[in-house]
Amino acid sequence: MDFDSLLTDRVLGIDASGVRRAFDLAASLEDPINLSIGLPHFDVPEAVKAEAQAAIGRGMNRYTPTQGLGELRERVMAELMTGYPETLVASGGGAGGVRGWPEDTGLLITSGVSGGLMLLMLSVLQPGDEVLIPDPFFVMYKHLVTLSGATPVYVDTYPDFRLTAERVEPLITERTKLLLLNSPGNPTGVVSTQGEIDALSALCTERGVLLCSDEIYDLFTFDEGELPSPLRTTRHAVVLRGFSKTYAMTGWRLGYAFGPRAVLEQMTKLQQYSFVCAPSTAQSAGVVAMDADVSGYVAEYRARRDRVVERLSGLYELTAPGGAFYAFPKVPEHLGMTGTQFTESLIERNVICIGGGVFSQRDTHFRISYACDEDTLERGLDVLVSVVN
Amino acid sequence: MDFDSLLTDRVLGIDASGVRRAFDLAASLEDPINLSIGLPHFDVPEAVKAEAQAAIGRGMNRYTPTQGLGELRERVMAELMTGYPETLVASGGGAGGVRGWPEDTGLLITSGVSGGLMLLMLSVLQPGDEVLIPDPFFVMYKHLVTLSGATPVYVDTYPDFRLTAERVEPLITERTKLLLLNSPGNPTGVVSTQGEIDALSALCTERGVLLCSDEIYDLFTFDEGELPSPLRTTRHAVVLRGFSKTYAMTGWRLGYAFGPRAVLEQMTKLQQYSFVCAPSTAQSAGVVAMDADVSGYVAEYRARRDRVVERLSGLYELTAPGGAFYAFPKVPEHLGMTGTQFTESLIERNVICIGGGVFSQRDTHFRISYACDEDTLERGLDVLVSVVN
Repeated sequence: MDFDSLLTDRVLGIDASGVRRAFDLAASLEDPINLSIGLPHFDVPEAVKAEAQAAIGRGMNRYTPTQGLGELRERVMAELMTGYPETLVASGGGAGGVRGWPEDTGLLITSGVSGGLMLLMLSVLQPGDEVLIPDPFFVMYKHLVTLSGATPVYVDTYPDFRLTAERVEPLITERTKLLLLNSPGNPTGVVSTQGEIDALSALCTERGVLLCSDEIYDLFTFDEGELPSPLRTTRHAVVLRGFSKTYAMTGWRLGYAFGPRAVLEQMTKLQQYSFVCAPSTAQSAGVVAMDADVSGYVAEYRARRDRVVERLSGLYELTAPGGAFYAFPKVPEHLGMTGTQFTESLIERNVICIGGGVFSQRDTHFRISYACDEDTLERGLDVLVSVVN
Repeated sequence: MDFDSLLTDRVLGIDASGVRRAFDLAASLEDPINLSIGLPHFDVPEAVKAEAQAAIGRGMNRYTPTQGLGELRERVMAELMTGYPETLVASGGGAGGVRGWPEDTGLLITSGVSGGLMLLMLSVLQPGDEVLIPDPFFVMYKHLVTLSGATPVYVDTYPDFRLTAERVEPLITERTKLLLLNSPGNPTGVVSTQGEIDALSALCTERGVLLCSDEIYDLFTFDEGELPSPLRTTRHAVVLRGFSKTYAMTGWRLGYAFGPRAVLEQMTKLQQYSFVCAPSTAQSAGVVAMDADVSGYVAEYRARRDRVVERLSGLYELTAPGGAFYAFPKVPEHLGMTGTQFTESLIERNVICIGGGVFSQRDTHFRISYACDEDTLERGLDVLVSVVN
């Protein structure tokens, strides 16, 4: 039987070769200096692990409600209402069993932020629709847009990687359905200001475009008191947050989606027929995770960010990252190499970074992840310094 | 902003009200006799819980490879090759790191069978395609087909609920892409014979239709030595199996998909951008689960199945179930009620069953789940006997 003929254009249109190549390279080296890892170097906090283990022991092993475990939902709602009282506390009544929670919004516990992204895209995107994606971008965005049948439209944010209303506005058409915002951003580490976000949010509301704010790295913010977010000024955006990066539980698949009720209801319905529910024990542990103090790790990553900036400045064109655990320097012009060529040349020095072409329509930069131990980072920076001298 | 206008026909076309109504009814009763539960009444076996807890302790909390943890993949491959040597052992070589594993096939560890179903449908279905679904059917099938943009075509299997090549053949068109087989089946409990499956498989190969065998209830088979499966005679079918029902870990979201390599490669690519990976600790525990002995539970469910058949025979038209933990009797004609009306009348007697209209184009039957404790089942059967006398 010819199985290839069964495959859809939708799935064949997804080209995953760039990321796979980076992984294959990493696997081919013995003890590499690996600056390509997209997850924290520490383990889940002990109290959170203990709660997951206890939850298994007491039988939290069955389906939870589609929308998530009541206890975790209430905890997230309370946290959001405390953090964003001006936008997220209703004047009266309440919904979802929580007093003050605004009726026109919804909350869904998801299988990671990627689970939320997929449900969102399948709920609002169809062939003919356009999605505005900041370039450079998290690789999953363009593939999920392709999967949904819609068309990605890239907002060029080079050289400073700021997603501004001025850059977005000329690209909005009658077909634009969704604008993706990712702050702190992967691969650049750039953090949007509240002013930038509010201008984007106003533009979206004016033009009938849904704003989706992917805040997976929300706690890894180094220079602002609190992360700027659409949550401060509107409840019209869909906000996605995760436990994966913050609490080092990337394998547990836990996140949440907040936003307009009409959209969240559809996402919940789709979850019922796909993910079913986020993993039950992770949900129990999530309640405890929200009390865990990861500020020590954030301080560590801040110091590493400083170290990356300090050592590479002057040698590489680099926008100082304000969050996440990435930096996205430009390959120096005098080397005459693309990002891909440059990262392949680094392999010869036993260093793994990811070429910018994986994250962008351009291939002029490369991504460093500093979510590694200090020694690895230092040795990697030694190589990056030496190759341009 | 008008958020409703953003929603797609695809998602609005999914009507989840039937199932939701059953859940709402269940929630509205105090201490109901609940015969509507679709999951085992026992907890995860102790050794499996212990391994999940140990895995958390030793840091199995990060992303696994997209295709699944090596150890679990190898264990599943070995199990399949042992169970189905005639179809699943290659004459030479091997793939996926396992000697003898046939090169033209693939294996993906999924987030439950529903995760595998979604990935399969998004990989092979697009608008214009048709999917053959046995009626009655597991509710998720029709919704996932709708989500993928394809059209469900129902194969009427009343009154004996046997999916035969004779029933399927007249419905195959140029647009037919996929045939779904679910044995043991939800909601009927009917188990296909190997002869029926081989005839379906031959028909599918002849007509270029992909056969998908959902075997989520594979270990809950009461009357056959081994479950009849396409795996015995072909490696052209996509076979989905889960750990959820067998080991009572419905909240852990773990299953696997086996099938033609061309299809499995695309499903794996999609998983990378959606589910990312099945939950890591569940995967570790899955290795141990495959050694767990659940034959005691299977014997219990067989005895309950016998009890249901014994007490309802003569009073209800009932096809004796051969597996899973469901029975699907017809509402007696003299009551003059639809399945929905009948189950609503049962609510007044404090009994929850699900009306057949949820699982079918017809609304003449109702589903009993006997995955409850013995006392609950006995009290429920008392009511079911009394209402027709």
